[in-house]
Amino acid sequence: MSSAPGFFDVRMRGFRDRAEVDDVCRLLDGRLNALTPESVPLLEAAGRVLAQDVISDQAVPPFDRAAMDGYALHGAESFAASAYNPIDLKIVGEALPARPFAQHIEPGQAVRVMTGAPVPHGADAVLPAEAASETNGIVRIVEPVSPGRHIGRRGEDIAAGRVVLHAGRVLRPQDLGLLASIGTALVAVIRRPAVRILITGDELLPCGSKPYDYRIVDSNSVMLAALIRRDGGIPAQPVLLPDRRDLLRAELLDETGDLLLISGGTSVGKEDHAPGLLAELGELSIHGVALRPASPTGVGFIGRRIVFLLPGNPVSCLCAYDLFAGRAVRLLAGRPPKMPYRVRRLPLAAKIVSAVGRVDYVRVGLRAGQVEALAVSGAALLSTTTAADGFVLVPRDREGYAPGEEVDVYLYDN
Amino acid sequence: MSSAPGFFDVRMRGFRDRAEVDDVCRLLDGRLNALTPESVPLLEAAGRVLAQDVISDQAVPPFDRAAMDGYALHGAESFAASAYNPIDLKIVGEALPARPFAQHIEPGQAVRVMTGAPVPHGADAVLPAEAASETNGIVRIVEPVSPGRHIGRRGEDIAAGRVVLHAGRVLRPQDLGLLASIGTALVAVIRRPAVRILITGDELLPCGSKPYDYRIVDSNSVMLAALIRRDGGIPAQPVLLPDRRDLLRAELLDETGDLLLISGGTSVGKEDHAPGLLAELGELSIHGVALRPASPTGVGFIGRRIVFLLPGNPVSCLCAYDLFAGRAVRLLAGRPPKMPYRVRRLPLAAKIVSAVGRVDYVRVGLRAGQVEALAVSGAALLSTTTAADGFVLVPRDREGYAPGEEVDVYLYDN
Repeated sequence: MSSAPGFFDVRMRGFRDRAEVDDVCRLLDGRLNALTPESVPLLEAAGRVLAQDVISDQAVPPFDRAAMDGYALHGAESFAASAYNPIDLKIVGEALPARPFAQHIEPGQAVRVMTGAPVPHGADAVLPAEAASETNGIVRIVEPVSPGRHIGRRGEDIAAGRVVLHAGRVLRPQDLGLLASIGTALVAVIRRPAVRILITGDELLPCGSKPYDYRIVDSNSVMLAALIRRDGGIPAQPVLLPDRRDLLRAELLDETGDLLLISGGTSVGKEDHAPGLLAELGELSIHGVALRPASPTGVGFIGRRIVFLLPGNPVSCLCAYDLFAGRAVRLLAGRPPKMPYRVRRLPLAAKIVSAVGRVDYVRVGLRAGQVEALAVSGAALLSTTTAADGFVLVPRDREGYAPGEEVDVYLYDN
Repeated sequence: MSSAPGFFDVRMRGFRDRAEVDDVCRLLDGRLNALTPESVPLLEAAGRVLAQDVISDQAVPPFDRAAMDGYALHGAESFAASAYNPIDLKIVGEALPARPFAQHIEPGQAVRVMTGAPVPHGADAVLPAEAASETNGIVRIVEPVSPGRHIGRRGEDIAAGRVVLHAGRVLRPQDLGLLASIGTALVAVIRRPAVRILITGDELLPCGSKPYDYRIVDSNSVMLAALIRRDGGIPAQPVLLPDRRDLLRAELLDETGDLLLISGGTSVGKEDHAPGLLAELGELSIHGVALRPASPTGVGFIGRRIVFLLPGNPVSCLCAYDLFAGRAVRLLAGRPPKMPYRVRRLPLAAKIVSAVGRVDYVRVGLRAGQVEALAVSGAALLSTTTAADGFVLVPRDREGYAPGEEVDVYLYDN
């Protein structure tokens, strides 16, 4: 039993009052910031979050270059060209990528060029190979090409001194290409939060075991690890603990990691040591949330680490992770805090019944463009989240939804 | 110069006729199948594609269990309970997870239970702790609890013998939890395709270099590697090759990997050896696609490997990857073949002009819920794909779109 001031021990008594979902989000948004930057090689930077603006010290391309395979020439010399009035130019050399034509092009001359080759001095256009014919060192032109055509101007992709990507950007594959083109080797990105996962429960066997007698297999650790990775965190190898206060205490005092998730032992049961310990060793900011099926959720801090008490029931655990712990991971990772699910707005095939005063996490299926509630209760039934296409959150001030009403469905699959 | 029968050498002449985008997709869909299965530990299986149906040999939960912390009792004994008529039951023991109460509950008795504990024999309901008060070994009940309440029945989550997940499923975090709960240690998933990346071009410096003189930095390899990972493939360390036929030939004869991407040297330039070599050593199925800005795309086969000739211009490379090479990666990986971008249907702020007879890949921005074309040409300007929010594909039979018309926007960010 904890003696921390102001701590109300809920064990075998129940929650006095529950925090609102929005209050928990506000607490997280107010207290968590993106972690410090680290440098990573460009090849490993996909999906990472840029820590600072990137300003190019290079022009891209760094010189005027041919944008097509063909012939570099002085455009004005081609103006009169047509099928009835072909114009012949003498080919005086060629320019290849990284192998420029060293001289100046004079009137009546052209240079064979490949895409990417520096445009020879004196030329101001490239006639595409398909629009010309070459015989015995002469290129015959049957259509005009205006000055500037098929030339990539120095700096037209990126001007030197320009901000090319802004801090906070989740790096796209093409962003990495852009960064490579300006000579970037290492890129400063937000450090990925290190997340410890503690699973408590005397009845639990580690993931990978076969269940036997009255023992069941922990299913939360492997689910949480995948969710943490999705949100940009690095999950540590999960630790399975029996329901022993001393062992849990030692884990809470371990300062490793940025975020600690404790699954199980977080509610009002006799063996639920986590809330009391958290209040004793640090701060239990929230315990109990007006959210079905994740009401026994807690949030607190020990030193600079944030600690989440997640319900042991797997659906509750998933729900509490997505709404709260995942939000913390995303905030620390510098990502947008909102849940990373695709949202579709669709009409309900049948009503959803909910209770005013709490948010309901309703698993739903999509059938012929309509939404059907599959499960409102059943916090222990993970199969409701594998059979569902997604979920709907019924707000606290609603008694549910009527048939035909449009609702936002968060889709489990991308 | 290749002498393969039926091969038309396009170098310095141009493509005779171009394949349609849909024909390329059909070719890929017709010739590529998901790779063979491999077993991976559950902790590494997130996002992998299930290779076969999973049938549970377990019931989950494996026994009737308490779904709440509280008191197990015989529900019928509580039927008359109210605040005016409290009923007292004698607490004869407790049941904890993995520590069952060994005896039978007799009339007038209750057992203290924690969530997850086996329900004692003789009990058929659990009264939540919050709805009861306990004094000196007696629990006082002031409301009835019906038989079955707050009990998780054996097999209610998963019945033994049931197919719990179907082949082809992209594994969600909660799927891993479900698989853990039925005792899965290893899961059979489709092998990830191994993709080799060859970058050709005398002017190119490896990613991470600073550009100098007339040499520029390869930006395609790092972009392609990230795209391949996104689509479920494993990119090999990219190889940078000068424009030399003998070196390219040796790489084409190397049988490593499931898929080979060659960027650059694939068009109609004098140094474009790849198409001829592919026709000579295997099959050049397609060369030239009616797609701007990726018309110099080729597809072929050498033995069991598929080979893509991707344009060296980075926007063209991105476009050809997403539409074709990425589709091949996804097909081999057992994933849905369509592009993995989120699609939004939105009205155009201004017209898009296109040419009948080819598909146009138009980079667009979103402003106040409307779509604006940012770039139609500019195949070399990767910054057009970093500044854009996504792209629109204008079909071959359209001359473009009128202002206000709704178009599908493929969003670069998730």
